[in-house]
Amino acid sequence: MATYIVTGSSRGLGLAMVKNLIARDPTEVRLVIAATRKSSPALDEIVKREAGRVAFIPLDVSNEASIASSVEAAGSVAGQKGVDVLINCAGVHSWVDGKTEKMSDLDHQLSVNVVGTHNVTRGFLPLLRMGKLKKVANISTFYASMTLAEMSSFANCPAYKISKAALNALTVQYAMSYKDEGFTFLAVSPGWLKTDMGGDDAHLTAEEGAQAVLNIVDKADTDSNGSFKNVEVPGWDMYDGKNVPW
Amino acid sequence: MATYIVTGSSRGLGLAMVKNLIARDPTEVRLVIAATRKSSPALDEIVKREAGRVAFIPLDVSNEASIASSVEAAGSVAGQKGVDVLINCAGVHSWVDGKTEKMSDLDHQLSVNVVGTHNVTRGFLPLLRMGKLKKVANISTFYASMTLAEMSSFANCPAYKISKAALNALTVQYAMSYKDEGFTFLAVSPGWLKTDMGGDDAHLTAEEGAQAVLNIVDKADTDSNGSFKNVEVPGWDMYDGKNVPW
Repeated sequence: MATYIVTGSSRGLGLAMVKNLIARDPTEVRLVIAATRKSSPALDEIVKREAGRVAFIPLDVSNEASIASSVEAAGSVAGQKGVDVLINCAGVHSWVDGKTEKMSDLDHQLSVNVVGTHNVTRGFLPLLRMGKLKKVANISTFYASMTLAEMSSFANCPAYKISKAALNALTVQYAMSYKDEGFTFLAVSPGWLKTDMGGDDAHLTAEEGAQAVLNIVDKADTDSNGSFKNVEVPGWDMYDGKNVPW
Repeated sequence: MATYIVTGSSRGLGLAMVKNLIARDPTEVRLVIAATRKSSPALDEIVKREAGRVAFIPLDVSNEASIASSVEAAGSVAGQKGVDVLINCAGVHSWVDGKTEKMSDLDHQLSVNVVGTHNVTRGFLPLLRMGKLKKVANISTFYASMTLAEMSSFANCPAYKISKAALNALTVQYAMSYKDEGFTFLAVSPGWLKTDMGGDDAHLTAEEGAQAVLNIVDKADTDSNGSFKNVEVPGWDMYDGKNVPW
């Protein structure tokens, strides 16, 4: 009977996670809150069809007033049982044409992907404290791994990589700070997905990525608090479910 | 006959590095540019005493116009030989009173410590390309290590830690992007220093830290490009000169 909030859920991985969660038995998933800047026809359709079990709540993670309104609205629909799981999926990505000196949006990527996630997380903490599961999953990327940076040097998106490394560091700080309250904070690399962000050449469908991320979230317990998890996908050696080196 | 630029050099580690460099033989160190927001009596005294070998140039790393002026001024004093080594030492630090949700300056710390370093680095790149050594050292911290986060959990400065992890990721991106031009980019953990930032209980004097960081910079070559180095200080097991895990 858990309640989930998924940010960035109008499309791509976020939307696929909403769909996956809502397909589960109501005894397992009570309510899914799709918190996203703007809805989409696909999300509208789900909200209409699943009236009462899926709620759309506007959330602009780069706007603190919007976060406060979103928290208030989420509190109203979630009620006294609060929220069990927060999945921070909202994020931005950009390509650079040329060398790293051409990277012109590092401040923006850090602001949305790191400060935005921080503000959303701390905003929803009171509702998460009321919940039972107390899990927060931050959607990261293999590209955030400094250890394995050479392996992703082909992808010229330095601001995205740097912001996701910082998101991992944020995850670690939260993990240490809220361990005493029974929270589990995770960074999860969802794999390369066929979404607007990942493009058509990617490895996995959004649905496969959503299933794989949610498997990680389902299994997560306080032992995995503060870790950076790779998804596990049968048939893919590179998606082995192990910790990704920082 | 190398020219160095040290940012954040009005006090603390930055000032100590300026002093260390200027004490070297002029055949080794031609010119030291102390690029810092405001000078200090200590820096003024050095600039006066070492006229011609130390230049103070105003630099506010959070202001792109200031960076552009600083680059122009540095180009004038450095001349056709350009700049050999850039040491990005300017940075901010803050403590949090309470849990991570109380962290209110993450945007500021990221802006100065990461975006500021990026803008300074790309601003000085044309002068570094004219130089022979082509080294850039970013002053990081042990606290940036996610692998070893538990060891520094006693220090409640999450924004600083996150920003320095992001600085490490920035260093890795630059390292990969400029390898083909013979550059060496390093992140260096200087140890815990008795400075305004480190306080009186710290392990090493600013002078010891400066010597240790400059030893790393002296030894750095393209083989160490993209690494995160611990300083090596005799008598201290924890300062072993090895790579710090990310």
